[in-house]
Amino acid sequence: MTLASTSQGIDANAANANVIDRMRTLFGADLQAVEALLIDRAKSPVSVIPDLSGYIVSAGGKRLRPLITLTAAHAVGKPDEATYALAAAVEFIHTATLLHDDVVDESDLRRGKPVAKAIWGNKAAILVGDFLFARAFNLLVEANSLDILGRLATASTTIAEGEVRQLAAMQARDLPTEDYLAIIAAKTGALFEAAAETGGMSGGGTVEQSDCLATYGKNLGLAFQIIDDALDYGGTTTVIGKSVGDDFREGKITLPVIIARRRGSDEDQAFWDRAMNLETQQDSDLAHACHLIRATGAAEATVQEAEAYAALAKGALRALPKSEARTALEDLADFCVSRAY
Amino acid sequence: MTLASTSQGIDANAANANVIDRMRTLFGADLQAVEALLIDRAKSPVSVIPDLSGYIVSAGGKRLRPLITLTAAHAVGKPDEATYALAAAVEFIHTATLLHDDVVDESDLRRGKPVAKAIWGNKAAILVGDFLFARAFNLLVEANSLDILGRLATASTTIAEGEVRQLAAMQARDLPTEDYLAIIAAKTGALFEAAAETGGMSGGGTVEQSDCLATYGKNLGLAFQIIDDALDYGGTTTVIGKSVGDDFREGKITLPVIIARRRGSDEDQAFWDRAMNLETQQDSDLAHACHLIRATGAAEATVQEAEAYAALAKGALRALPKSEARTALEDLADFCVSRAY
Repeated sequence: MTLASTSQGIDANAANANVIDRMRTLFGADLQAVEALLIDRAKSPVSVIPDLSGYIVSAGGKRLRPLITLTAAHAVGKPDEATYALAAAVEFIHTATLLHDDVVDESDLRRGKPVAKAIWGNKAAILVGDFLFARAFNLLVEANSLDILGRLATASTTIAEGEVRQLAAMQARDLPTEDYLAIIAAKTGALFEAAAETGGMSGGGTVEQSDCLATYGKNLGLAFQIIDDALDYGGTTTVIGKSVGDDFREGKITLPVIIARRRGSDEDQAFWDRAMNLETQQDSDLAHACHLIRATGAAEATVQEAEAYAALAKGALRALPKSEARTALEDLADFCVSRAY
Repeated sequence: MTLASTSQGIDANAANANVIDRMRTLFGADLQAVEALLIDRAKSPVSVIPDLSGYIVSAGGKRLRPLITLTAAHAVGKPDEATYALAAAVEFIHTATLLHDDVVDESDLRRGKPVAKAIWGNKAAILVGDFLFARAFNLLVEANSLDILGRLATASTTIAEGEVRQLAAMQARDLPTEDYLAIIAAKTGALFEAAAETGGMSGGGTVEQSDCLATYGKNLGLAFQIIDDALDYGGTTTVIGKSVGDDFREGKITLPVIIARRRGSDEDQAFWDRAMNLETQQDSDLAHACHLIRATGAAEATVQEAEAYAALAKGALRALPKSEARTALEDLADFCVSRAY
């Protein structure tokens, strides 16, 4: 990365840092309608359900995915009640996935915070995930389009496929980058893609416009997940904190590890093979892993990979009319990447 | 039960024993189309998915729920391709529920057979359940009716609520019969109800006819589950075999236990309190539990409860035109109960 592009990056950071807040302000009335649905549709006479889902739905949710849906609708037209139901469904699908993910990951903390299953147990987490997933499809009936519903059903299928594939790739010594990308395209990209595309469909966009939004969402999801995976090792600058090392402790092979291993000495490769194997991993390995990821330039290379997808995401928006919504989506792509610095 | 009604019961058994085979023959072409969908839609490039789902979908499946959907369609009209997709979706939802149920139940055997999670692990069972559930909604898009899809989404929500409620009621000392009935109405009745009702809707039935089929399905589901729960203690006559005691070993409070406890001496009640608590349950307790359930007449009373629901199920069909399909549904209600003898 040249000095010029770095300083441009820093400027962009300042402008983009608040893009999510800006979206929340621009489309505040829409988001409020979605929030009301999220509370209302988590209701159940079985009290564990609203308790547990309230914990995960309300706790620190940026509402990134429903915001994408709402903003996509504004970028090509206008959201209505059906769009709100759709956006709420997208968030419920995400939440259900998170709940099951946490059970599968065998981790009691996510970003340093106790996960729902650590409080209510695995069983309740599985079943409340099922509940929210089913409620998502009830909401999608209100979104009133079999076409839109089909997109979300397919995305849900793809997410599950991605999760199973990730399970099979756990602790794989030498995961090809292509396999890593296929996994994150499925487990993260698919829902971003569907969130953006169906937002366009629901907002009254043309087929071409919704296709562009699908391409935007898919690439944004890839950029977002790659940066997430970089942040799990502290990004490019962050000091190791409590929110670092979740993937490492689970033996999840992500792009920073793939690159650092490939670029490493024989000794480094032996380290990765031992450290990513949960049977031989030691507590002190995380610090060395973070060191290697920075020393080999793997952190920087990972972020550059994300930048390439963010550029593809922004490029896909060029066919849409200029608007505050389109600018927000563009800035969101930059912001996803700038989180790593 | 009088001698007359008993011997009538035995005659009915003979006539009803093969009702599922009869339905399979009557609607063989329809069922074949559904079976083809079940195989096709379990496909995935991620091989664990078809392997695991094939194990549970193909293994000994009676296809009871899709047969109800097909037969309901025939009872009021005619099934078509959309009905086949619907029937396959119903079976996938059932299968997904079974997979998650087995994880939550912590049992490695179901009816003496290893459950999927015992072979592929909990994680794969959870995720493949999610996959099948998502695929069910893809199939429901093909069923081409938001109304029908909404019924199945609501049923799925209700099932999850019932499962969470059952979890909370585990090892409850004194579960009211009403709570037991509410749990099984949700976890079993809801899908039977939706299977029958949407079969009617998809077959071209009137709203009134589909309502009757919903009432039929709901009561059939209750009868079916109550008998299942009786069979878990050997029914009224069966010698204890390998398929007995699953509920007992999980501390699940079911109708035979509720009745036997209520009718028992102080000593019996102390036994139930100790035996249904997994921390104090002993291996030898199952035989005594089965003995008490028979000695107190709880087995017989449980079956009579199921008979009442089966009668309600059959009664709901009276408004439908006479047909082979209607007769099959009536006989199915009798058969569900006769399994206990």
